[in-house]
Amino acid sequence: MCRWLAYAGEPLHPSEVILDSRHSLVAQSLNSPLGAETVNGDGFGLGWYPVVDTEGAGGRPPQPALFRSTEPAWNDQNLREISSTIRSPLFLAHVRAAAGPPIQQTNCHPFRHENWLFMHNGGLADFLTMKRDLTLAVDPSLYPEIQGTTDSEVLFHLALSHGLQDDPIAGMRAAIRETERIGNAHDIRFPVQGTFAVSDGTTLWAFRYSSVGRSRTLFHSTDIDVLRQMYPHAERLRAFGRHAHVIVSEPLTDLPGAFLEVPESTVAIIDATGYRHEPFLGAA
Amino acid sequence: MCRWLAYAGEPLHPSEVILDSRHSLVAQSLNSPLGAETVNGDGFGLGWYPVVDTEGAGGRPPQPALFRSTEPAWNDQNLREISSTIRSPLFLAHVRAAAGPPIQQTNCHPFRHENWLFMHNGGLADFLTMKRDLTLAVDPSLYPEIQGTTDSEVLFHLALSHGLQDDPIAGMRAAIRETERIGNAHDIRFPVQGTFAVSDGTTLWAFRYSSVGRSRTLFHSTDIDVLRQMYPHAERLRAFGRHAHVIVSEPLTDLPGAFLEVPESTVAIIDATGYRHEPFLGAA
Amino acid sequence: MCRWLAYAGEPLHPSEVILDSRHSLVAQSLNSPLGAETVNGDGFGLGWYPVVDTEGAGGRPPQPALFRSTEPAWNDQNLREISSTIRSPLFLAHVRAAAGPPIQQTNCHPFRHENWLFMHNGGLADFLTMKRDLTLAVDPSLYPEIQGTTDSEVLFHLALSHGLQDDPIAGMRAAIRETERIGNAHDIRFPVQGTFAVSDGTTLWAFRYSSVGRSRTLFHSTDIDVLRQMYPHAERLRAFGRHAHVIVSEPLTDLPGAFLEVPESTVAIIDATGYRHEPFLGAA
Amino acid sequence: MCRWLAYAGEPLHPSEVILDSRHSLVAQSLNSPLGAETVNGDGFGLGWYPVVDTEGAGGRPPQPALFRSTEPAWNDQNLREISSTIRSPLFLAHVRAAAGPPIQQTNCHPFRHENWLFMHNGGLADFLTMKRDLTLAVDPSLYPEIQGTTDSEVLFHLALSHGLQDDPIAGMRAAIRETERIGNAHDIRFPVQGTFAVSDGTTLWAFRYSSVGRSRTLFHSTDIDVLRQMYPHAERLRAFGRHAHVIVSEPLTDLPGAFLEVPESTVAIIDATGYRHEPFLGAA
Repeated sequence: MCRWLAYAGEPLHPSEVILDSRHSLVAQSLNSPLGAETVNGDGFGLGWYPVVDTEGAGGRPPQPALFRSTEPAWNDQNLREISSTIRSPLFLAHVRAAAGPPIQQTNCHPFRHENWLFMHNGGLADFLTMKRDLTLAVDPSLYPEIQGTTDSEVLFHLALSHGLQDDPIAGMRAAIRETERIGNAHDIRFPVQGTFAVSDGTTLWAFRYSSVGRSRTLFHSTDIDVLRQMYPHAERLRAFGRHAHVIVSEPLTDLPGAFLEVPESTVAIIDATGYRHEPFLGAA
Repeated sequence: MCRWLAYAGEPLHPSEVILDSRHSLVAQSLNSPLGAETVNGDGFGLGWYPVVDTEGAGGRPPQPALFRSTEPAWNDQNLREISSTIRSPLFLAHVRAAAGPPIQQTNCHPFRHENWLFMHNGGLADFLTMKRDLTLAVDPSLYPEIQGTTDSEVLFHLALSHGLQDDPIAGMRAAIRETERIGNAHDIRFPVQGTFAVSDGTTLWAFRYSSVGRSRTLFHSTDIDVLRQMYPHAERLRAFGRHAHVIVSEPLTDLPGAFLEVPESTVAIIDATGYRHEPFLGAA
Repeated sequence: MCRWLAYAGEPLHPSEVILDSRHSLVAQSLNSPLGAETVNGDGFGLGWYPVVDTEGAGGRPPQPALFRSTEPAWNDQNLREISSTIRSPLFLAHVRAAAGPPIQQTNCHPFRHENWLFMHNGGLADFLTMKRDLTLAVDPSLYPEIQGTTDSEVLFHLALSHGLQDDPIAGMRAAIRETERIGNAHDIRFPVQGTFAVSDGTTLWAFRYSSVGRSRTLFHSTDIDVLRQMYPHAERLRAFGRHAHVIVSEPLTDLPGAFLEVPESTVAIIDATGYRHEPFLGAA
Repeated sequence: MCRWLAYAGEPLHPSEVILDSRHSLVAQSLNSPLGAETVNGDGFGLGWYPVVDTEGAGGRPPQPALFRSTEPAWNDQNLREISSTIRSPLFLAHVRAAAGPPIQQTNCHPFRHENWLFMHNGGLADFLTMKRDLTLAVDPSLYPEIQGTTDSEVLFHLALSHGLQDDPIAGMRAAIRETERIGNAHDIRFPVQGTFAVSDGTTLWAFRYSSVGRSRTLFHSTDIDVLRQMYPHAERLRAFGRHAHVIVSEPLTDLPGAFLEVPESTVAIIDATGYRHEPFLGAA
């Protein structure tokens, strides 16, 4: 129901990919050819990890900041100012098409818990039917932290309850399985649909999964070195460092080969070693 | 933490009492001498019942409309336009000073369920500690209707779960007692504080109660006929019909005798027979 | 750059045509097949004249009320509440796609001057180049009333300066001619583009005109009596009285024959005698 | 009608002085004991210059960023996030109490022109009477840049028209004198009132002046070295570097001696050499 983008690599002004590309995330907010909805004008959010001092913060994990708004992204002046001023080595950005829950900041992605960020495109089927049971399944100590009314935030807190901070893949797996169990108990056949991004500020995990096996689109960028060989004269590529990676709902450019699809039932991982992916919850 | 006003009587432009009085509700939003907070700038709401066609709507209860916003009331142009255009025989208006929950429309009072409206000034002590248990105590069929994150909305749904629509006084009593029970179980000594307004479109109930026995202020207007005898030359009184009654957190005027305090542990009732009040949850 | 709708006839809840039709104005805000822009999500406005007491207001013209917001119309809860609560015999509604000027309430249509309302779809070419000269051409007594930064509001005040209140057609003609003169002096070839709605609360004037002779689309509804003969079983038509007329940027329905195009260089007029149109600034 | 704060010195999170002090600017937005208005809840703005790479940007002056909002500052979550994430060696922050012009982002201070920022507390008397003449006095090339409707923004553009970028003190002097001349021609006795902050990213100028000679309050912080000798155990002072200087409408703390008044008819200047002030438009 939304579009999102996650970046990891050399510190970058987020505006480079959320505003300045041909099919930037903000361009997708107005016109999203591959989206379930064409228009994603019900608010946006940007969560970013700061550039870390090499002298360090004593080993503490970096704390992400959030800028979220209920305005459409396309004409938001503050988004332009902030995303072209800050620099970040890892950020998540999201434009929302509300499927039901109210248009309010607390329903804008990404969601944050301590040093973790989470965002979601898609939805939990017939959410209001499952909502009470799902919310009860959240750890009581985490329950008061739920601030909005989206399915996505509940799912995030369910994954936190299932150890997301220790093992993000296992935490997401358990949260999705529990959602499917609860949904099935309510005669909801395909409870989970979506792509999900999770980060602790160092690693980025992007999940593509749906109960029905036909998930929202998800793409990752080709290695910059490869792209530079393919397009030695492309001006745009100079903005990006060698470790730059983007995962995004739709390709940011029409350059053939610049973006590759993340397969169904897959988790993509970006860390210091680069991009890789592995099966997730698939037909075992 | 807020200020509110409820009117019942001859159809009136709400602006007469929420904007145009010396100490109107909107004036109180900027400067509330008797309030727990001086400034109530975290949004507002107006809920009103329409003027009913005498030919009737076939016995259906009147459906109230809501206009709620996160803007401060004092400079809101739309509030001026709407409140001075519509006319209503019964309306509730509220200005908010947020004690914690986010500034968003779904946290603005009044809240609505079918033909019922509800609003609250005050708060549930240590709400986040009680929130899960309180929310679980809401009837599962009503649970999905909770849209915001305030203590007030949860209390309203608790009262609905306890039969507010059949007997508003009994419903409120049960909801408050249950909140006190849950609060005490969490070592919260004085869980409930506030004044509450409830209406079905025909009758208005206003409750003043707190566990500690020192509740937020609440006043009701003197009968217009009496006021006219006291102040035969008061221009302002001509705006009001003979059945006009206002219940409000603070007097709207400095006219001595125009507003009388609603006592502690009391429910005030305004209906076709006029104003009366009776003890509510008092020292038994 | 926008879409608009004007209604005159028996008092109606505006929601009937701005929300509940298949291609309602709000539906057009999300997806406007005939629009210069597909998405009109940069705010909206509703201006309405109240139902007049037959006993009259002493001959004073009716004063219109405004509800304007910078939110997209499609998910605005207040617009739903208000437009389905009030009833009006004449109202103007507008959804905006900003071409440049900031997203703010003072840039939302309709604009108001005393008992007059005005709205516009289209634009003045290269407005910032002309803006100072156009603004200087506004009568100094009207100048301080300009609250926003749109070309449309300046044009409205230019028409007021040229006697719109005495003769709306002559006022609009003079304002457009002056704009074309000023534009041409700045080497702007086709300064004016658009459709314009003007009302005094009794009559509705809708202009379709552009300097280039290819104006934004504009349609008017067929007489209800004719429609009822064509579609005797159409449930939807029962909502409308015999004098109901709509002028709108795009047809509200797919019913063949329900909406007819207003020709180029034309002013359409709806008053107590029904619908008619006449040439406006045409090929002289 | 507002409160403002300007900081120059070692790079700092703006939150240190706009949020975390006892009488921080945001605290002043809710309760401003020395202000013309107690509540400054009609929007806010933060303009900041980035930390400059020592390797330099090729001599180009630093470009400031803006974050402005119509929400009250006190509960704005985005302001907390952004002001505690960015770091800046020179920033201007403002909370607004609107005296008339609409609540909209384009009316929020600071205003920006190229690398210059400007903000104002106070007002031009009877502005609507002078507005047309003042606006005409703005250089036509600057005229289209005026985006809002405040007296402050017009005055800024008047100062720009009078060479503010070449000589800020002379530019402000000429703009104020021209305003007084125009005002007097309209029988406005004391046209200018206020305190003004101007910066190019390197130097900060703060003006205190009013035609009547009784200007809004303005204070500057004592040198940090002096403060540390006075208060060797003050934890709060550790957040600030040796070159830190604040100019602000009201003292941020109750520490005696920490803030000194800027005299009437004075311009205060903060640059690499520290703080100084000189007479401005004084008793001639």
